[in-house]
Amino acid sequence: METRWSNRYAQRTHTMEASIIRELLKLTTHPDIISFAGGLPAPDVFPVHEFEEACSKVLKEHGKQALQYSTTEGHLPLREMIARHSSRYGIHVGPENILITSGSQQALDLIGKVFINNGDNLLIEHPTYLGALQAWGTYQAEYVPVPLDEDGMCIDQLTEALRAGTKFIYALPNFHNPAGVTLSLERRKKLIEIASREGVPIVEDDPYGQLRYEGDHLPPLAALDSEASGKGAYSGNVIYLSTFSKILSPGIRLGWVIATPSVIQKLTLAKQGTDLHTSTFDQMVAYEVAKGGFLDKHIQKIRRAYGERLRVMLDELSANFPDEIEWTKPKGGLFLWATLPKPFDTREILKTAIGEKVAFVPGGAFYSDGSGWNSMRLNFSYCAPDLIIEGIRRLGNVLEGMTTRAA
Amino acid sequence: METRWSNRYAQRTHTMEASIIRELLKLTTHPDIISFAGGLPAPDVFPVHEFEEACSKVLKEHGKQALQYSTTEGHLPLREMIARHSSRYGIHVGPENILITSGSQQALDLIGKVFINNGDNLLIEHPTYLGALQAWGTYQAEYVPVPLDEDGMCIDQLTEALRAGTKFIYALPNFHNPAGVTLSLERRKKLIEIASREGVPIVEDDPYGQLRYEGDHLPPLAALDSEASGKGAYSGNVIYLSTFSKILSPGIRLGWVIATPSVIQKLTLAKQGTDLHTSTFDQMVAYEVAKGGFLDKHIQKIRRAYGERLRVMLDELSANFPDEIEWTKPKGGLFLWATLPKPFDTREILKTAIGEKVAFVPGGAFYSDGSGWNSMRLNFSYCAPDLIIEGIRRLGNVLEGMTTRAA
Repeated sequence: METRWSNRYAQRTHTMEASIIRELLKLTTHPDIISFAGGLPAPDVFPVHEFEEACSKVLKEHGKQALQYSTTEGHLPLREMIARHSSRYGIHVGPENILITSGSQQALDLIGKVFINNGDNLLIEHPTYLGALQAWGTYQAEYVPVPLDEDGMCIDQLTEALRAGTKFIYALPNFHNPAGVTLSLERRKKLIEIASREGVPIVEDDPYGQLRYEGDHLPPLAALDSEASGKGAYSGNVIYLSTFSKILSPGIRLGWVIATPSVIQKLTLAKQGTDLHTSTFDQMVAYEVAKGGFLDKHIQKIRRAYGERLRVMLDELSANFPDEIEWTKPKGGLFLWATLPKPFDTREILKTAIGEKVAFVPGGAFYSDGSGWNSMRLNFSYCAPDLIIEGIRRLGNVLEGMTTRAA
Repeated sequence: METRWSNRYAQRTHTMEASIIRELLKLTTHPDIISFAGGLPAPDVFPVHEFEEACSKVLKEHGKQALQYSTTEGHLPLREMIARHSSRYGIHVGPENILITSGSQQALDLIGKVFINNGDNLLIEHPTYLGALQAWGTYQAEYVPVPLDEDGMCIDQLTEALRAGTKFIYALPNFHNPAGVTLSLERRKKLIEIASREGVPIVEDDPYGQLRYEGDHLPPLAALDSEASGKGAYSGNVIYLSTFSKILSPGIRLGWVIATPSVIQKLTLAKQGTDLHTSTFDQMVAYEVAKGGFLDKHIQKIRRAYGERLRVMLDELSANFPDEIEWTKPKGGLFLWATLPKPFDTREILKTAIGEKVAFVPGGAFYSDGSGWNSMRLNFSYCAPDLIIEGIRRLGNVLEGMTTRAA
C-alpha cells in the first residue's frame, strides 16, 4: 500500500550517484578503516569543557529563555558578535544583515528556495561543494561549470560562461572543498569586476576562511565588492555564508548568512516555513562559549593542529604516491585534491582501498556532469598524524599496484 | 545594486497576509500586553534543572560525539525510544521507521520537498495549521478545504472534496491547532475507510496528543489504518508527525516523522540537502532528559498546569464574552477558537485589543482562501491563571464595546 506515496519527481542522476557513494562510504566508518573520506573536524580540538561551563551558565541564568521558542532571525547577541567579527575582515554590517541558519547547509537550501527557479543557470566551480549540488538539485537548477587551477576559479573563462545567462555565481574562495585551492587576490578582484559588469550576484561560501596555516589572509569577495562599489559599507551584491562547524562544533549546526536587510527578510520568511528557527539553546551556548575572546584563542589551537596534519599528509604523499599522480598544496582548510591520469576510475580504486582499510571520496561526486572520476578528495583534519602516515602508505600501495598493472 | 537579487516568484497573497499579521503580533511581545496570540508552552514547566544535569552528563561521557557531525536519520537511542513510545499507542515501528527532524515544522517542509508538485491538490481542514500552509506554499500546493465542527473534520464532505484528485490528506486529529477540536473515534474510522477506498495517503500531525486534560485517549490514524489493513504492523499509509516541543522544550527544535523505511529514505535524502542533520547535542541531551520514565512524569505535570489554565479560560469566556460569540471546548492541547457573527473582522478588533493591552491571532491566518476573519485563536498554555482572568476581561470589554456599537 505504500505506493500511495509517490515522489515529486524522479531522483536525478547526480543524486543517485551521490547516494551510491554514500553507501560505499558507510563502509568506511568501520573502526579498522583509516578514513580520509569524511569532512569531519578532529574531535580532540572540541572545547568540551567550555561547552559544559556554558550550558550550566545559560541554563542557570536564562534557562526559561534557552528552552523556549525564539525569533527566526536568531539570537541577537550572537548576530551582534558575528557582525563585529565580520567588520574585522572588511564586511561592515550590523545584526540586521545576519540570519542564523541550521548550519551552512541550510543557508544553501534557503537561497535555493528563495532565488532558484526550475532551469535557472548557476555558475559553479568544477569541482564544487557536493552539498550545494544536493541543495540546489531540489530546485531543479542547471549548472554552468568553470574549472579550477592552483589559483582557484579560472577567471579567464568567466565572461564566456556567463553568456548563457546566470542567476548567480557560487564561489568558495578559501581552501576550497574539495579542491583545497585558494582564489588569488588578483582573481578575486577580476571576479568582482566581471560580476559587476555583467550584473550577476555572487554567493560566497566561506566555511574555512579562519583556518589558514600559512601565508596572509585574503579579503573576502563581499569586502572587495563593497570596496569597489565605493561606499565602504556592505554593497549587498555578495551573499556571504559561514559557519561555526569548523571553528567550534559541527554537531550544534550553527551557520550564518550575511546579506542586505531585504534579502535577509526573504530568507527569514523562507526559514520560518522550513524550521521556524535554529535551536535557541545551541545559539545561546555557542555565544557563551565564543564570547570574550575565547574563539580567537581556540582557532589558534585548531590552526596548529590541522597545519601539522596537512604537512604530514603532504610529506607522505610525496614519499608514497606514484609519480603520475598530482595533488594540490592547500594553505588552509580541511581537504586536498589528487588527480590521476585520465583512464583511472577512483570509484574502482575506492573498492580496492576499502579492502586495504583506507578510504577517500571519488572526485566525480563533486562534479555536476558525471566527469572527474580520475580524481579524489583527501581530508587531513580528522585523522591524527600517525594515522595519516599509515593511511597514506596503504593508499600509496593500492595506487602503486594499480598504476603498475596499468603500465 | 541589491536588485541583482531577484526573487524566485512573487510571494503569495496568503504569505503576505501572514506577514502583516506577524508584524501586528510583534507588538504583542511588549511586557504590558497579555498575549493569547502565541503558541508558546509555559516556561515554568520547562525541566531546566534536568537539562542542566543532562548536558553535564552528555558532555562528560560523550562530549566528542555530542559536538561532532552525526547521521541524518538521527540519534539511534532517541529513535528507539520514540519507537517504543509509539508502540504503546498502536503504531508498531522500529527505528528504521523514524527520522528526527528540526522541529515538526521541518517534517512539513521535507514532505513538501519530496512529494508536492506545483499545483498538487492537498486536502486540508479549515481552519488548519498556519505553518503547514507556509511550508507547502513554497512548493506551490493548491488546497481543497473541508470544514471542522466540534467533532473535527466534517467527514461527510470528504468524498466530494477528494473528487478533484488529492496528493494527500492533512489532518490534525487531536486538540486541533487552531480550532481546539478533536476528531471523534467514529470519524477517525470513517476517514481511514474513505482514504483507503480512494487510495489517498494521510499526513497525521500530532503535536499535542499527549496533552489531554479530560476524557480517554483516542487511537492515532496511523494505528487505526494499520489495524484496518489487517496486518497489525504499521501499514505506511499514514505518515505520522510529532514533536518534543510541547512536552519537553520547543527551543531545542526536535520533532520526528514515522513512515515506511522507503519514505524515510526519501525524506532523509531531502534532509541531507536541507540541514545535514539535527543538532547532535540537542538530540543526546533530550534523550538523556526523557529516558527512564522522566518524560511520562513530566507530561503529568504539564497536563495539570494546562488543564487548570483551560478551565480558567473557559470560565472567564462564559462570564465575559458577549452572547453572540461562540467558542470550542477543547479536551486538551494549547488553543481554543472563538467565532463572531459574520460581519465582524478580528483584524480590526485586534488593533483595538492591542490598545487595551490584550492580544490573539485573527482567524483568517489559518484559512487558505482569505476567509475566516470573523474568528480568533486563543492560546491558554502560556499565561498564568491570573493573567488569563485579567486578559479575558479586557478582551470581553473590547468585544462588548464592539458588538454593542454594531447593534
